[in-house]
Amino acid sequence: MLGSMYKYEQVRDKLLELIETVPAGGKLPTEKTLAHEFDVSPMTVRRALQLLTSEGRIHGIPGNGTFVSQPRVTKLVSSSRSFSEAIRASGGEPGSRLVSATMRHPANQQERSFFSLDSGFVIEIRRVRLSDGVPIGLETAVLNEPLVPGILGHDLTGSLYELLERAYGLEVQRTGIVVSSRMPSPQEADLLEMPSEIPCLQTIVTSTEQTSASLERTVSLFRADMYEVKI
Amino acid sequence: MLGSMYKYEQVRDKLLELIETVPAGGKLPTEKTLAHEFDVSPMTVRRALQLLTSEGRIHGIPGNGTFVSQPRVTKLVSSSRSFSEAIRASGGEPGSRLVSATMRHPANQQERSFFSLDSGFVIEIRRVRLSDGVPIGLETAVLNEPLVPGILGHDLTGSLYELLERAYGLEVQRTGIVVSSRMPSPQEADLLEMPSEIPCLQTIVTSTEQTSASLERTVSLFRADMYEVKI
Repeated sequence: MLGSMYKYEQVRDKLLELIETVPAGGKLPTEKTLAHEFDVSPMTVRRALQLLTSEGRIHGIPGNGTFVSQPRVTKLVSSSRSFSEAIRASGGEPGSRLVSATMRHPANQQERSFFSLDSGFVIEIRRVRLSDGVPIGLETAVLNEPLVPGILGHDLTGSLYELLERAYGLEVQRTGIVVSSRMPSPQEADLLEMPSEIPCLQTIVTSTEQTSASLERTVSLFRADMYEVKI
Repeated sequence: MLGSMYKYEQVRDKLLELIETVPAGGKLPTEKTLAHEFDVSPMTVRRALQLLTSEGRIHGIPGNGTFVSQPRVTKLVSSSRSFSEAIRASGGEPGSRLVSATMRHPANQQERSFFSLDSGFVIEIRRVRLSDGVPIGLETAVLNEPLVPGILGHDLTGSLYELLERAYGLEVQRTGIVVSSRMPSPQEADLLEMPSEIPCLQTIVTSTEQTSASLERTVSLFRADMYEVKI
């Protein structure tokens, strides 16, 4: 007996067992075949497939069928500090596409007080982060400009943390990570080359350097079907 | 100058400063008034309002206007272990509505291996979690039945961790938290009394008891506009 589970949830669990035997990119049987196999209605199979789609385990290609998705990249907070490390740990090759690099004044009171800047500049580096060339996240890093003079002259497509250490001798000390979720804006979905109906996982990371001056406030938006955080 | 920001993002930042002066539940000026005040088109104001809506900062009530939302409950992973503690820490009164309490066999291979159960039972407790009576999360806790015999006879509307300690002398040791995001299924949205277009933050928490036998695997789905996790 399966207790309080709805029938489509039972079918979801059976499909999960099936999915685990199919390699990423592999095709699932048709709704009709699955309905026959599990002895339920095609409607029940459809709801179970919708659920697995919303969980990022499978995806449909119109006119072609339903396919098993790549497993999500899991960022292990305790051991991999940067996006690049997390991608490498999951077996992918990290990359970046620069969207914009800007020197500007703090945009609002929140930024002014975070960086203790009454006048002066911050650096904003906006990048699409890639795993094996596929866009996974949109990262907007805001840095305390007096700590990183001339950073806009460097190559900004690699690990920022590695650059901060190598070029400025800064030891990045993470002070907080807030994880939340939201839908992407149309512009964010465009940059991530993703459908705007898929939710995103948002992380806001703040860091200081060794003398505890505020160094970084980075807002990253990841495709929720491709990325998760493990604490 | 505001660098690479789009105009509607600049308006969003100005609106954020405005929102911070308005108490939760307070009403914002109309699109037309805001467009006039910020000297931009109503379309730009609308995009900025959409962005803030997707971030959970404001919400529209059709035919009435736009209102400032309650701030999110922030669960601080390092200091508050249970949902009840997180709600109390944010000044709310925690509560639960029992959806189902079930003794059943493991539903799939994943559960069998997690609990090292070839035969035997697990307990599944499904609850809507409330803050001041408002549904915030849908929690499905699966427990290792041999460690908690007779638990279905207890009051299951309070903190489960408190019950495990008080009634069974179990010290809950958290072994992992995976945070991801997905859309709610229609049934989950019904239980959470939420529109199905709002994404959810999902946490999967696993725990052992002191002798390191698997005790718990709890999947919780929180309204993303009401809840976030701080590491």
